[in-house]
Amino acid sequence: MHRITTEITVPFHDVDAMGVVWHGRYVKYLEVARCLLLDSFDYGYVNMRNSGYAWPVVDMRIKYVKPLSMDQIIIIEAEVVEWENRLKIKYLIRDKDSGVRLSKGYTVQMAVDMAAEELCFESPPILLKKLGIA
Amino acid sequence: MHRITTEITVPFHDVDAMGVVWHGRYVKYLEVARCLLLDSFDYGYVNMRNSGYAWPVVDMRIKYVKPLSMDQIIIIEAEVVEWENRLKIKYLIRDKDSGVRLSKGYTVQMAVDMAAEELCFESPPILLKKLGIA
Amino acid sequence: MHRITTEITVPFHDVDAMGVVWHGRYVKYLEVARCLLLDSFDYGYVNMRNSGYAWPVVDMRIKYVKPLSMDQIIIIEAEVVEWENRLKIKYLIRDKDSGVRLSKGYTVQMAVDMAAEELCFESPPILLKKLGIA
Amino acid sequence: MHRITTEITVPFHDVDAMGVVWHGRYVKYLEVARCLLLDSFDYGYVNMRNSGYAWPVVDMRIKYVKPLSMDQIIIIEAEVVEWENRLKIKYLIRDKDSGVRLSKGYTVQMAVDMAAEELCFESPPILLKKLGIA
Repeated sequence: MHRITTEITVPFHDVDAMGVVWHGRYVKYLEVARCLLLDSFDYGYVNMRNSGYAWPVVDMRIKYVKPLSMDQIIIIEAEVVEWENRLKIKYLIRDKDSGVRLSKGYTVQMAVDMAAEELCFESPPILLKKLGIA
Repeated sequence: MHRITTEITVPFHDVDAMGVVWHGRYVKYLEVARCLLLDSFDYGYVNMRNSGYAWPVVDMRIKYVKPLSMDQIIIIEAEVVEWENRLKIKYLIRDKDSGVRLSKGYTVQMAVDMAAEELCFESPPILLKKLGIA
Repeated sequence: MHRITTEITVPFHDVDAMGVVWHGRYVKYLEVARCLLLDSFDYGYVNMRNSGYAWPVVDMRIKYVKPLSMDQIIIIEAEVVEWENRLKIKYLIRDKDSGVRLSKGYTVQMAVDMAAEELCFESPPILLKKLGIA
Repeated sequence: MHRITTEITVPFHDVDAMGVVWHGRYVKYLEVARCLLLDSFDYGYVNMRNSGYAWPVVDMRIKYVKPLSMDQIIIIEAEVVEWENRLKIKYLIRDKDSGVRLSKGYTVQMAVDMAAEELCFESPPILLKKLGIA
């Protein structure tokens, strides 16, 4: 339903001593894609704060299938796969030229009511509204 | 069996616009602990390379329980929990003062035979030897 | 003579606890521009290595005029300003919308002969050739 | 007068594809030393904010003398060298074992009155007081 695709060129400073992108650097790539995805349904960082909720990442998993190298152009797909109690986004990283799958992962975010300083165990109505569900 | 503990003070540059450590920065903390753990049984980065194997991270998961803030002193425990077919290390991050659990996670590394450029579906004997098992 | 311009959108993970881009993150922006500049005259990282020279940064200066914030679109200009004994590149960062100057800086790189493992106090002929001077 | 020394072990994730610490990563090392220095005279980040002033870095220069490699233990000295109109701190990075100079640099910070949102062209009295001068 809600899905975006974006392209990144691997910069020199993301490559480690083994000549491949250091595994911790992928978190940036997922975030760039996630921010575009959230913006696509008008619920990016600023709108989240304005709605009274922070949405920290509470769980993240990344599987590394093939290494990434300098100057490689990658395509990242990000897709909303859960929203009722938490916001789960799935990612797929492919090589632009060959389409080969390089990595996949997900992040889970939960709403925190910023005024009450409380974790929400159900997603607040604003998320469903932004997603066009409620 | 093989377990280490280390201490890190959260630096300013790891904190994000929400005033807490950005979730992607934890990967560095896990790596610092993992390198100490691997060194503790004499199989750190240099020894890995000298043994003819690279050990890329192929899977990583991090759960974020409580946020980390600037100047907070954290204790990271890292422990080897699987070694036969792959090297799985579990992590636990606690607040130093209170002992409260802040985050947990794991990484999975698989051996790559650097000469043959092939992934090993069983851990090479050198790992078991270093672990004191074989 | 040799100058390029590129555009970057400031990501969330570059912003610090003060709500502005952390000053150390600018180094990435300069590098993205520098790599494009070097590629523009066919002397990027891979070609440097193939020519037998590494070109480490030996001096860097950045002046911070106005803060950068999340989602801001910036334009980075990079220009070769010295080449005879060392490669000096000047940078200017502007706000895309307003054109306002946000930051400026430079980097100096010196050639290292990789076979001899020696610093070159004159730029090797390959640089001048690539620049179209010799 | 005001000077501190601290020690850092270079982690794997700071090393680049050339096998040495990427030049942009030094900014973190300087910051760790600067924060300790500021804390040493009781004017760290939190106290700065509480005093009503932010102190952004407005100028930074780093000279790279010798490369740093993984697991190398470095000593960073940081020293206050100017305070009247701006806060200038000088840094020196040495190899712990040999004492050899590896890098040097400086940062300049200027006070910003957070209530007035104005840059101060003289350092506010609180800095001089903390430094034990006024």
